[in-house]
Amino acid sequence: MNVNAHSAQDKTRLARALGERARAASRSLGAAPTAQKDRALESLARRLREGHRPILEANAADLDQGKAQGLSEALLDRLMLDEKRLEAVADAVLQVRALPDPIGEVTSTWRRPNGLTVQKVRIPLGVILMIYEARPNVTVDAAALCLKSGNAVILRGGKEALQTNLALHRVVAAALGDAGLAPEGAQLVQTPDREVMLALLQLDELIDLAIPRGGEGLIRFVAQNARVPVIKHYKGVCHVYVHAAADPRKALEITVNAKAQRPGVCNAAECLLIDRAAIGTLPAIARGLIERKVELRCDPAALAALQQEGLPAVPASPEDWGREFLDRILAVRVVEGLDEAMEHIARYGSLHTEAIVTQDLSAAARFTREVVASAVMVNASTRFNDGGELGLGAEIGISTSKLHAFGPMGLAELTAQRFVVVGDGQVRG
Amino acid sequence: MNVNAHSAQDKTRLARALGERARAASRSLGAAPTAQKDRALESLARRLREGHRPILEANAADLDQGKAQGLSEALLDRLMLDEKRLEAVADAVLQVRALPDPIGEVTSTWRRPNGLTVQKVRIPLGVILMIYEARPNVTVDAAALCLKSGNAVILRGGKEALQTNLALHRVVAAALGDAGLAPEGAQLVQTPDREVMLALLQLDELIDLAIPRGGEGLIRFVAQNARVPVIKHYKGVCHVYVHAAADPRKALEITVNAKAQRPGVCNAAECLLIDRAAIGTLPAIARGLIERKVELRCDPAALAALQQEGLPAVPASPEDWGREFLDRILAVRVVEGLDEAMEHIARYGSLHTEAIVTQDLSAAARFTREVVASAVMVNASTRFNDGGELGLGAEIGISTSKLHAFGPMGLAELTAQRFVVVGDGQVRG
Repeated sequence: MNVNAHSAQDKTRLARALGERARAASRSLGAAPTAQKDRALESLARRLREGHRPILEANAADLDQGKAQGLSEALLDRLMLDEKRLEAVADAVLQVRALPDPIGEVTSTWRRPNGLTVQKVRIPLGVILMIYEARPNVTVDAAALCLKSGNAVILRGGKEALQTNLALHRVVAAALGDAGLAPEGAQLVQTPDREVMLALLQLDELIDLAIPRGGEGLIRFVAQNARVPVIKHYKGVCHVYVHAAADPRKALEITVNAKAQRPGVCNAAECLLIDRAAIGTLPAIARGLIERKVELRCDPAALAALQQEGLPAVPASPEDWGREFLDRILAVRVVEGLDEAMEHIARYGSLHTEAIVTQDLSAAARFTREVVASAVMVNASTRFNDGGELGLGAEIGISTSKLHAFGPMGLAELTAQRFVVVGDGQVRG
Repeated sequence: MNVNAHSAQDKTRLARALGERARAASRSLGAAPTAQKDRALESLARRLREGHRPILEANAADLDQGKAQGLSEALLDRLMLDEKRLEAVADAVLQVRALPDPIGEVTSTWRRPNGLTVQKVRIPLGVILMIYEARPNVTVDAAALCLKSGNAVILRGGKEALQTNLALHRVVAAALGDAGLAPEGAQLVQTPDREVMLALLQLDELIDLAIPRGGEGLIRFVAQNARVPVIKHYKGVCHVYVHAAADPRKALEITVNAKAQRPGVCNAAECLLIDRAAIGTLPAIARGLIERKVELRCDPAALAALQQEGLPAVPASPEDWGREFLDRILAVRVVEGLDEAMEHIARYGSLHTEAIVTQDLSAAARFTREVVASAVMVNASTRFNDGGELGLGAEIGISTSKLHAFGPMGLAELTAQRFVVVGDGQVRG
């Protein structure tokens, strides 16, 4: 591939070449036996472990350049690989290897009155375009998940991680080759500018799905410019709703865990809604959060309740509702009951994860029936909306689009289901 | 709604108003009990039967205008309603009523080691934009399927059928009202020009899915201009492949049925591939087709075989491969075996329906494993790729997109699946 391609036409040509090679590779990958795919995954894990030197050198170069360009500490941390992190990446590959192969799975079978047998059978989607930002582990995670599910993948990582991604991709391509699979099954876009990505997003005859993961700006750009289907992995504005009939201890533990266990991720809570009837439990919850260094941005009723107890809190501004802080900040609002809580969630939620804390069966039933979100939790932390935690195995992301996949996307969500009909000469009358 | 809206801005405003009303209606529809939705369907069927007069008058007006504008006989036939056809439309509504409600269905349940119970539960997609052409029965069919699955629908039919659609839509809205449901659950676009459709296709925050059904031009326009997700219902270029080990009688019956039972539909066959080793069976198949007035467009080998028997056939032109004739025309090609047949299908097929006729288990297994199409048939006619024939109940169309739904789309395909997690205070460690 010519990494010096400059003109728009060159970039369109480059994108098309990537798409066509991926399409060709997807045919053989889609038909590859499980054992062959698993051999490639074993080889990938081994090569990551044995060949960490050039990967870490490439990563050091990216980090140096990033520092020189003044990238934030948070971004540099996401970009950074060390032996321990690389070991975790190799472990994740072996976990994918251990999952059952979804391809060929018969998800249901039935017989028609005319004797036809109908099956629904999983096949790969075909070619997946993975668009992501600084985290280089996504290069390997996405390649492993796509490989196991028989899909070809085009990896388009952020330019900050280009050297690292090139080194990781060499390992992925070599592992495919070790197992006798086409190395074009996983290609890396070596010119990570927006023009090549834009050209790729037009190739609806070669690419079956684009999965953008990253900041809101990137996802919006992809969604607005794609002709290929897109599954969005958007922000998580998750709420914990403490109902009047909540168990106070569960309310405390769940709220603190949802906000503070890992504040920078999409399934962390950003807003606490609490029934006026349960406001007596707010000071204890607030103490738990304040101990974990969480700032509370409160509506007037919550603010008054906390100030009365001498607890620190600040007034919420209107923009704090529906905001993804990704930080040790929580918006707090007192509501009059279930209806007001569900209205708040319908207005400000992002379809990601919503939790209710209650001992009341009817309230839990209405909440789980009426709240639209990829995961609705009863008496459990929002942090459980995760492929591993829910038992799906590894995930390629958490979809906040309702179509095709809603919530964590594991191997099954990287497949389509086709009808296979077996007859004995039946014709339609 | 102001049907005299003229400026682009007016049309954007009109589209947004439709979208917002649909979104609001979708909330109550999504939570409506099965009995209430079924009452609306019963009322719809009754109103169609009792109130056919104004519908047929409106249809007569559309037909008069269509004749004056010189619409083709085929188009006029698709547009035409009479008492019998209206009766069939009402019957279809009652069939949808009789199907199980997909909403709330728990498709799987499991328990995690930490005691969390995880369920996948069906919810409506939300708001569906149905875009179609002349057939007015789609107005009622789509409204009934969306209603049963708890979705709000925006119906955008062709301008040729506007008077009929307005009359049908009045009945639909009244039936929703009869059952105490918001009439905005099914809205009709009363200005069927491309600008309003284009504006609707941009509303990705209000509309969850667009389903275009109709000619290739319409579908391409929708796919290229939509920001909302689209499930394409594209053309059907279906093949029947007669393998060397085919039973000659099954080969004959399946080919004739696939082509001639109803030549103008998307699951009719457009091309016969026949193994050179089975060429002895071609004349009998050809006779069966010729009796049903099918023209055969043949490659040189097939042509020679038929001419030797004195059977009429014409040479195929290169454009005849991959062509959707929708008519009593069949392309015929002799292939050297399974690989060549599958290559032809990969190149010229449209992912719709592909059939093999063979008594050989290994050939059938490879064909069903490797051919990518929404339905793959073994010893059965392509005409069985249909929601009713496969046992899904009514269908809103046949998807040739792999994402979300592939093949006939029934009620289940008009839903999303959400995770519902029930715990007893679990937090993540």
